[in-house]
Amino acid sequence: MKRAIYDEDHEAFRASVKEFVDRSVTPHAEEHLEAKGLPRDFWLEAGKQGLLGLEVPEQYGGMGAGDYRFNAVLTEELSKVNASLPSCVGIHSDIVAPYLVELTTEEQRQRWLPGVASGELLTAIGMTEPSGGSDLAALKTTAVRDGDQWVLNGSKTFITNGYSADLVVVAARTSPEKKAKGITLFGVSTSLPGFSRGRKLDKVGQPESDTAELFFEDLRLTDDDVVGELDQGFIHMMQNLPQERLNCAVSNLAHAKQILAETIVYAQERKAFGQGIGSFQHNKFLLAELVTQIDVTQSFVDECVLAHTRAELTPIDAAKAKWWTSQVQNDVLDHCVQLHGGYGFMNEYRVARAWKDARVSKIWAGSNEIMKELIGRDLGL
Amino acid sequence: MKRAIYDEDHEAFRASVKEFVDRSVTPHAEEHLEAKGLPRDFWLEAGKQGLLGLEVPEQYGGMGAGDYRFNAVLTEELSKVNASLPSCVGIHSDIVAPYLVELTTEEQRQRWLPGVASGELLTAIGMTEPSGGSDLAALKTTAVRDGDQWVLNGSKTFITNGYSADLVVVAARTSPEKKAKGITLFGVSTSLPGFSRGRKLDKVGQPESDTAELFFEDLRLTDDDVVGELDQGFIHMMQNLPQERLNCAVSNLAHAKQILAETIVYAQERKAFGQGIGSFQHNKFLLAELVTQIDVTQSFVDECVLAHTRAELTPIDAAKAKWWTSQVQNDVLDHCVQLHGGYGFMNEYRVARAWKDARVSKIWAGSNEIMKELIGRDLGL
Amino acid sequence: MKRAIYDEDHEAFRASVKEFVDRSVTPHAEEHLEAKGLPRDFWLEAGKQGLLGLEVPEQYGGMGAGDYRFNAVLTEELSKVNASLPSCVGIHSDIVAPYLVELTTEEQRQRWLPGVASGELLTAIGMTEPSGGSDLAALKTTAVRDGDQWVLNGSKTFITNGYSADLVVVAARTSPEKKAKGITLFGVSTSLPGFSRGRKLDKVGQPESDTAELFFEDLRLTDDDVVGELDQGFIHMMQNLPQERLNCAVSNLAHAKQILAETIVYAQERKAFGQGIGSFQHNKFLLAELVTQIDVTQSFVDECVLAHTRAELTPIDAAKAKWWTSQVQNDVLDHCVQLHGGYGFMNEYRVARAWKDARVSKIWAGSNEIMKELIGRDLGL
Amino acid sequence: MKRAIYDEDHEAFRASVKEFVDRSVTPHAEEHLEAKGLPRDFWLEAGKQGLLGLEVPEQYGGMGAGDYRFNAVLTEELSKVNASLPSCVGIHSDIVAPYLVELTTEEQRQRWLPGVASGELLTAIGMTEPSGGSDLAALKTTAVRDGDQWVLNGSKTFITNGYSADLVVVAARTSPEKKAKGITLFGVSTSLPGFSRGRKLDKVGQPESDTAELFFEDLRLTDDDVVGELDQGFIHMMQNLPQERLNCAVSNLAHAKQILAETIVYAQERKAFGQGIGSFQHNKFLLAELVTQIDVTQSFVDECVLAHTRAELTPIDAAKAKWWTSQVQNDVLDHCVQLHGGYGFMNEYRVARAWKDARVSKIWAGSNEIMKELIGRDLGL
Repeated sequence: MKRAIYDEDHEAFRASVKEFVDRSVTPHAEEHLEAKGLPRDFWLEAGKQGLLGLEVPEQYGGMGAGDYRFNAVLTEELSKVNASLPSCVGIHSDIVAPYLVELTTEEQRQRWLPGVASGELLTAIGMTEPSGGSDLAALKTTAVRDGDQWVLNGSKTFITNGYSADLVVVAARTSPEKKAKGITLFGVSTSLPGFSRGRKLDKVGQPESDTAELFFEDLRLTDDDVVGELDQGFIHMMQNLPQERLNCAVSNLAHAKQILAETIVYAQERKAFGQGIGSFQHNKFLLAELVTQIDVTQSFVDECVLAHTRAELTPIDAAKAKWWTSQVQNDVLDHCVQLHGGYGFMNEYRVARAWKDARVSKIWAGSNEIMKELIGRDLGL
Repeated sequence: MKRAIYDEDHEAFRASVKEFVDRSVTPHAEEHLEAKGLPRDFWLEAGKQGLLGLEVPEQYGGMGAGDYRFNAVLTEELSKVNASLPSCVGIHSDIVAPYLVELTTEEQRQRWLPGVASGELLTAIGMTEPSGGSDLAALKTTAVRDGDQWVLNGSKTFITNGYSADLVVVAARTSPEKKAKGITLFGVSTSLPGFSRGRKLDKVGQPESDTAELFFEDLRLTDDDVVGELDQGFIHMMQNLPQERLNCAVSNLAHAKQILAETIVYAQERKAFGQGIGSFQHNKFLLAELVTQIDVTQSFVDECVLAHTRAELTPIDAAKAKWWTSQVQNDVLDHCVQLHGGYGFMNEYRVARAWKDARVSKIWAGSNEIMKELIGRDLGL
Repeated sequence: MKRAIYDEDHEAFRASVKEFVDRSVTPHAEEHLEAKGLPRDFWLEAGKQGLLGLEVPEQYGGMGAGDYRFNAVLTEELSKVNASLPSCVGIHSDIVAPYLVELTTEEQRQRWLPGVASGELLTAIGMTEPSGGSDLAALKTTAVRDGDQWVLNGSKTFITNGYSADLVVVAARTSPEKKAKGITLFGVSTSLPGFSRGRKLDKVGQPESDTAELFFEDLRLTDDDVVGELDQGFIHMMQNLPQERLNCAVSNLAHAKQILAETIVYAQERKAFGQGIGSFQHNKFLLAELVTQIDVTQSFVDECVLAHTRAELTPIDAAKAKWWTSQVQNDVLDHCVQLHGGYGFMNEYRVARAWKDARVSKIWAGSNEIMKELIGRDLGL
Repeated sequence: MKRAIYDEDHEAFRASVKEFVDRSVTPHAEEHLEAKGLPRDFWLEAGKQGLLGLEVPEQYGGMGAGDYRFNAVLTEELSKVNASLPSCVGIHSDIVAPYLVELTTEEQRQRWLPGVASGELLTAIGMTEPSGGSDLAALKTTAVRDGDQWVLNGSKTFITNGYSADLVVVAARTSPEKKAKGITLFGVSTSLPGFSRGRKLDKVGQPESDTAELFFEDLRLTDDDVVGELDQGFIHMMQNLPQERLNCAVSNLAHAKQILAETIVYAQERKAFGQGIGSFQHNKFLLAELVTQIDVTQSFVDECVLAHTRAELTPIDAAKAKWWTSQVQNDVLDHCVQLHGGYGFMNEYRVARAWKDARVSKIWAGSNEIMKELIGRDLGL
């Protein structure tokens, strides 16, 4: 089924993203792997290409696209390369940028947004803590008032872009007694005294994505560093979750779809017992199932993208899209590995890396179990 | 996600179908079960309501809707009642009618179409034979030329509406040596000498649907009974398969969706161990999964409906929709039975009947295995 | 893998069961279906053959086998016929008999056991109530002390053999305030005033098994009707659950195994597209998977049977065997239906009946959800 | 269920293996990871401990255990550490050793077996070639007669122990026209001219296992290097496959069982939303299912071990054990990762490594598809 959600402008943008990938990403794939992270050059190039500022108004150097479909196109094209790229770029451009655009003062916007759009100010978001993944009510990082300052203490983990970020939006407890309603967001410059980082985490997959623990020790912030309303951090985060989860969905599906397409070619060409392995009925039926699964899912994701473009995507539909696509992605890729036989276990094969990269998509950004809890509650259960 | 494919006219039509169901179907549900078939009164009422002639041009007494979405609305509403109704009506109105409209002479249209639209001429289609389900190349029924007549011999099985049909479109071999390219379609009046029927088949589910074996013994036909081109029956059938399979998909999904909605209410209300059974996390997550599965699938089916409305639905997308929805339907209903506990095994519960009714959807209209074969071939495998 | 748990005596007994089946069951299959129950003749024949008294000491007319493997052999052979037979016979001989043997006074044993062994006193067990399946703490049937009598009021549902039983072991609340610890078992003769039955329940499958609702209205019992200790009914039931659940496991597996064996023969013989349908790789792999699933499960069930023969089967292992086999049974039979194509949806085919019959095995005797709860608790969770 | 296949001697041996693991493996885990292989010291220690010569007769320095249960115990204990160890040791001791014991001349036994038992002669087996995994009929490596020598040319890939082996049993085509019946086995010393190795392959998992490509270029062998009968290599390999596949099964299951046990402890201790994560019903049910799956499978594997101890294990049962356990292993470990949340994606967690390590078990030693093909054929399909 031909997809119907994109028009010429989106496709022109897609062409420019592809050109960027061919020029600035693919030739450096090996370096990114070895460096276990994306170099600043990558970010500056992407900024120059206008890929980082889709959410940033033009007056601050961004594109002010105002149409989520451009974000979706960008995510799709990056996902065709690997699963790390859309994650790192998405955190910066699709997840953090909206906080900095929508919840900030004019002074903050001028301080931060130009760098976000240009790639000079790399960002991350600090929610998750070592002691409790999805449970924000258990947040232990605190920001305590001291005169007209805030003193930040605590740590965050699994922070994408954490090792190289210049600015981290950090959720900290400002009113200890008020549980979820006592959390505030801060824009924390990583050059401040009291900020430190752990090593790059050694992950199962996505080596090109730098992921780190962050530590705050008596780190001093001012009211100018507060992002949004005091004690309203939880609500601010909730409002941005649908876009984050939709981003995951778009990426999960585009990633699996690309590898499946490559696997079909492999199955056409690779011979065993004198015939193409894809022509064995078991494989043929399997590939037919996988293609169906992808196509069915694409329709739903496309509907979600359109809904979000109209600002009508519900958190529940985003939750459905997030968990479902991550399941589809992992199932599809597991079969793709199997179709490659022993080569599917070799890191030099894209399918092997893709399989490892994808595993976290069922866990991060709200685990699939959390998604089901949300959907179940929405059913009145 | 609010569905976006229907406009006011479709919804007005939906209201009229619902009114018909409330008035002419629901009060007679028990009779239909016991009679193991729909009485002629049902058909005449449906004809009067304008439900049988969506595909029939107005000049022959039909609605000439020319918009498949009306068919989809009708199928959805009937599927909410049970799985037999959309099957029986669909065979007549969505499957057979197009043959009689598109492949016929003016004389044939005048002979057949008014009765099709009014319900006075009930139709069926005779493809499947006892010796081989989906393998049309193995067709054994023959029509042998004798002077200017055709002499029909053979039998058909699993024929929906077969026990009460007045007209059966029968596929018969006219050129034995030409395999799939030697098959011709005939419009066979069931009042002709040489036609007989077996008993109503005793099926696992769908008791309201009369299903029968048909026998032809030296049944004499003329050229005026040929539907479409001589020896082109296989191609004619292929051209009508996408609509048949899309019909299945629309029905499969609407059927499961309705029972799932009823099951969610049951899970909210039924208590065990002092709480609503839907509030147990296992059940809550399960229902969240099922709802997601339905919603994801609805997006794809809706895209297929739109594509078919534009006459762009490919046989491959129809095949995907058919097998996928039947799998979803059966999975969802199996879980719905389980959520009903012992009551899910009692025929008086709708969920029990629905579970049995649905089983055939993975088998008929081209088994899921055939669908996967088609999709796999399309992948070049 | 050749099974190693049976010796010559067991195989000799198996031969006698087979002979009984051939003589007294198979020729009457159609009658049992139509009567929606097993006639008394069946029970008397089985009694004469010594099949009903495996648990009954010889002095009361039984076999006093003292070796559960004989029960297992009986269950296996009956399960090869259909799923109703082992259920009806099992309730009587394997489930109720142990209560009457182990918890009774000499007077009770003399009153009841000879009839149990001969088939003249058909038994049932009344635990489940309309308002709550597996939740015994919610039991509503009461036995209230009145002088030296007990007055029984309440109802039971889904009672196998309920329509024809002469004696029902009924669980009733005797100490309302003590929850699970206030339940007592009574041997209730169905000829007593105040006892009545509803109609035979119209079930999805297992038509040969009569299943009924039972009503008690001021039904008067004496202390001689108490089975076991006062207020200890819950514990008594717990003690008998492992054998009940193992019985289910033995039956679930033997039933599926038999139908799978028949399906393999069908797949060898049935042709499509010019070859045996079992030779299509998809079907071949599928059957390989199903056979593996059955064989793997057989090893576990056999280990459980041996453990139970040594009186060492834990409730947790019985729970594992029960839920797992029911899942295997249902999965295997669903695929067997699919392999039969349209015929799999016809009641005259054994596979169709088997599929319907099996559905309840995931629900009854403690639903699979209850089994998982028990196993999970045992893990300290 | 307490396992019943081991007696005191086996358990005493298990204790000695555990002691070896604690002393000689665990302290060096990090080194093995970094070296991407096991150092010679490991092998010499294992040899000294008597772990490498279970299959080697005492007169050649082995244990001549003659009871496969010792092999199974060794495999189980090594699998508790990681999946690489039982693979590397198994290839040497359980797979190659039987070839060298059973198919060899006295001279060959004296030349090779003492080193096998002591760990001084590390072995590997060379079957798989780059162009075709499981298809031995497509073997391209040739050994061409030249005078009284053989000239070996070709390459092998995915060779476990390949990087460090001193002796490789190589399958080569000696009679090109005879397909599977023209293959001969050779014992190839890796010190011979014409032998070379590629780099250590960069695998998804099992980093402690060195895996390599091997190249033979005009490598000269004599008749004394032929293992077994000329042109009978295929049959020789077939005869050893059941033990290889059973080894896989024992390892797959023991590996998953260990990680599951650790995950249950984690689920008891890790808190979220104020309670142990294992106490959430979804997780509780899930763990109940996984434990059942493991226990059911253990029964089958144990039956297979006993059968093999009696030399009665059929190739078909070995095939069933191999594919089924690999599926169980992968399913269980995927869920174990999910239960660990973000930590499940971190390489420092055992569960993350286990998940990656396990993936190949569905592929190697005959892919699961090959296993199903064999089982299906055995069903006469």
